[in-house]
Amino acid sequence: MSSAKSPSVSPLAPASMPTLPAIRGVGLATAQAGIRYSGRTDVLYVGLDAGTAAAGVFTRSRCPSAPVDWCREALAAGSAQVLVVNSGNANAFTGSRGRDAVALTARIAAAAAGCTEGEVFVASTGVIGEPLDATKFEGVLAECAARTAAGAEAWDAAARAIMTTDTFPKSASRTAEIDGVAVTINGIAKGAGMIAPDMATMLAFVFTDAALPQPVLQAMLTAGADKSFNCVTVDGDTSTSDTLMLFATGAAATVPVSDAADPRLAGFRAALDDLLIELAQLVAKDGEGARKFVTVEVGGAESDASAHRIAMSIANSPLVKTAVAGEDANWGRVVMAVGKAGEPADRDRLAIWFGDVRVAVAGARDPDYSEDAASAVMRKSDVVVRVDLGLGAGKARVWTCDLTKGYIEINGDYRS
Amino acid sequence: MSSAKSPSVSPLAPASMPTLPAIRGVGLATAQAGIRYSGRTDVLYVGLDAGTAAAGVFTRSRCPSAPVDWCREALAAGSAQVLVVNSGNANAFTGSRGRDAVALTARIAAAAAGCTEGEVFVASTGVIGEPLDATKFEGVLAECAARTAAGAEAWDAAARAIMTTDTFPKSASRTAEIDGVAVTINGIAKGAGMIAPDMATMLAFVFTDAALPQPVLQAMLTAGADKSFNCVTVDGDTSTSDTLMLFATGAAATVPVSDAADPRLAGFRAALDDLLIELAQLVAKDGEGARKFVTVEVGGAESDASAHRIAMSIANSPLVKTAVAGEDANWGRVVMAVGKAGEPADRDRLAIWFGDVRVAVAGARDPDYSEDAASAVMRKSDVVVRVDLGLGAGKARVWTCDLTKGYIEINGDYRS
Repeated sequence: MSSAKSPSVSPLAPASMPTLPAIRGVGLATAQAGIRYSGRTDVLYVGLDAGTAAAGVFTRSRCPSAPVDWCREALAAGSAQVLVVNSGNANAFTGSRGRDAVALTARIAAAAAGCTEGEVFVASTGVIGEPLDATKFEGVLAECAARTAAGAEAWDAAARAIMTTDTFPKSASRTAEIDGVAVTINGIAKGAGMIAPDMATMLAFVFTDAALPQPVLQAMLTAGADKSFNCVTVDGDTSTSDTLMLFATGAAATVPVSDAADPRLAGFRAALDDLLIELAQLVAKDGEGARKFVTVEVGGAESDASAHRIAMSIANSPLVKTAVAGEDANWGRVVMAVGKAGEPADRDRLAIWFGDVRVAVAGARDPDYSEDAASAVMRKSDVVVRVDLGLGAGKARVWTCDLTKGYIEINGDYRS
Repeated sequence: MSSAKSPSVSPLAPASMPTLPAIRGVGLATAQAGIRYSGRTDVLYVGLDAGTAAAGVFTRSRCPSAPVDWCREALAAGSAQVLVVNSGNANAFTGSRGRDAVALTARIAAAAAGCTEGEVFVASTGVIGEPLDATKFEGVLAECAARTAAGAEAWDAAARAIMTTDTFPKSASRTAEIDGVAVTINGIAKGAGMIAPDMATMLAFVFTDAALPQPVLQAMLTAGADKSFNCVTVDGDTSTSDTLMLFATGAAATVPVSDAADPRLAGFRAALDDLLIELAQLVAKDGEGARKFVTVEVGGAESDASAHRIAMSIANSPLVKTAVAGEDANWGRVVMAVGKAGEPADRDRLAIWFGDVRVAVAGARDPDYSEDAASAVMRKSDVVVRVDLGLGAGKARVWTCDLTKGYIEINGDYRS
C-alpha cells in the first residue's frame, strides 16, 4: 500500500467528483489515527442528530468481521448517533481481541458524542487478521466530535478517508420529495477488490434528512441493495466486512410513513435506488486493475433470479473478463459461462450481443456477424454483453470490470 | 496458438514423460487433418477390439458441445470400436451444423473401422463457436485405421495430438491384478484452462485390457472422477466439452465381475483412482500461466461435501491464487474464501496452515506464527494450504495452481 505500489487512477473514474450538499443532522470529520497508513486520513467520524434511524445490510460471509457483528447487534435497537469508520485494518479474524477493539472504539465514540454505546456504529476496512489497536482512537474521536462539518469539502474528505486500494473517492447525491417535503440523500462508498456477488457491498454509507421509521428504512435499503450492490462483482470474492448502511436523521420533518410500500415514498425510493446503483457502478469502475466497465444483461430466462445467477456467472468468469481485457469478442466464452451457471438454458435458443452487434443466434454464430463491428464494440471502455435465453421473461443486469495484469499486480503483493 | 504465443513449458511439468506399455486391444494413430493448426498433429484415432466396454463422465454444462451430446447417446449401448479426438475446434455452440459434423465424423470413422456408427465415440477441443469441417476427416481416418500402433511412441503421439494450450503432454499408467490376472491401465489427458469444479474434466481417455461389464466400468469411473477430476480447478470455468472416458477391451480375459463393489476389484479400483488423480494433477500443473501447484486440504467440516465446497471456494478464489503467485502467506484471504463458501463455519474455531506452519488458530493469528517460516513455504513450487474448521469429521482435498499474469496473457488474446 505504499505510494510506489498505488496504481494510477482508474481510466473509468468519473471526470469529476460530484459536489455533495449538506444533510441536516449529519456532521463529518476525518483524522489521521495512524492505524496503518501514514500521511493520509484513516478515520471518519460521523455525528448524527439524536433520533436518527439506522438500517444496514451486511456481508453473508460465515466469517464476518468484528465490526459487522457489532453493527448487526446495534441495529436491533436501530437508532444511531455516531458512525466511526477506519481504513487500513479490517479488524476481521482477530478473535476476542477484535471484539474488545470494537467495544473500546464504541466506548470512546460514545464518550465523544455523549450517547450510549448502542448508538455507535463501527466499520473497518483493510488488512484481515491483524489486531486493531483501538487505543489509537483515544482523543482522536473527541477531537473529531468537536469540529464536525457538513459542507462539500467534508463529504469529499469523508469519501477519501475510507479508501484502501481505491484509486478514486466515490460519492453520489440525490434529492426527492416525500409528500411535498424536499429531502436529500448523500452516499459514499469504498471498494475495489474482494467484490463479489450475493453480498451487501464493501463499505457504503448513505445519509438522508428524511424522517423514516427504522423498519421502513430497512425495507427500502434491503430492496435497493438487491438492485445495486448485489449486482456488482469485481473478482467473485466476498469480503468479511461488507457493510451498507442508511441513516435517516429526520431533520427534514417529513410526514412519518409507516409502510415502505406507501406511494408517497415512490420518489424517495427511486432516488435511493438510483444513488445505490451509481455507488455500486463506481465500485466496479474502480475494480482492481480495471480498464473496462462491463454491463451484463440477461433476458429471456425462466425467472429474474435465474437471470441474475447467469449474469453473475458471466460477470465472474475469468475467461470472459480476460477476453474483454484483450478486446476479443469471444462469445464462445459467454456460452461457456451460461452453460456452467447450472440454470435452465437451451443451447439452441441462445442469442448473444456485444453492444448492438448480435454475434450468435439460435445456438450458433450469427451468419451476418461482422468481426469488425464486434471488435469496434470491444475497443470501447464501456462494453455491454447481452444474452437472450429465449425461455421466459426473467431478466437481470449486473456490472463488472475486465480482468487485467493490473489485478494480478495489485493482489500479488498487497500485504507486504 | 502460433508458436510465438505458445507459452514455454510449465515449470510444474514432470521431469520426464512416463513410458506407456501397450494395452492389448488398443491401437493408436495420429494425423494432421489441418483442422486449425499447421505443422502439428490434430487428430487421434483409437481402434478398439470388438466387445470393448465404454464408460464416460461428461461436462455438467447446460450448453454442452455436439460431441458430448453424441457420446452421451452412444454410451446407452456402451460398446466402442473407435474413438476419434480432434484438437483446434471444440465443435461447441455450432448448432445443427455441429450435429451434422459429428454424424459425418462418426460415419467416416465407422467406415474406416468396419463398425456401426453407434460404436464410434468423438471428442473435440479447441475454439468454441466455429463450424468444424468434418470433411477433413475423409481419407484421414481410413489411413489412420490402416496403421495403428500400440507402443510407447504411439501413446506419446496420442497425448500430443489432443493438446491445445497445454504446454506438455499428459499421460499415466498403472498395473493391477483382478483375481490373479494382470491388467494394465493407460490414460492420457489434455487441459490447461477452462478447468473448473463440478465437472468431469477437459478431455481424458483411459484404456484397460481388463474385462469388465459396462455398468461396473461406469460405476468405477464415476466414483474415480469424483476423487480426481472433480477435485481440480484452474479458473473455475467449466468447459462445454469436458469428457472423461474409460475403455475396457477385455483382452486380458479377467474373470467377469458383475458388481463394482466386488472385493476382487479393490486393486484395480485403487490403481484406476490413482491414475485419474495423477492425470488430474497434471492438468492443474499445466494450468494456464501456472508457476505453483497448490493442494488445498480442508478438515473438520460438517461433511465431506461441505469440506469439498469450502476447498473449492479457496482453490477458486482469485485473491488466494494471486497471493500464492506473490508468495504471500496471506491467510486472511483464506478466511475470506472459507466465509464466502456458504457452508457451516465458525470463525472462532478456524485454524489455517501453509505447509506445516500454522498461521492462524482459534479465530485469530497464531501467536507463535513465524512470517519467515510461512514465507519459506510460499517460495516452494508446491504449496499446501490446510484448513481445520473444528466442526466435524468431513474432509476434502483439491488441487489448483496460482493465478499469474501469464493467465491473463494467454487468455487476453486466445482467438486471434
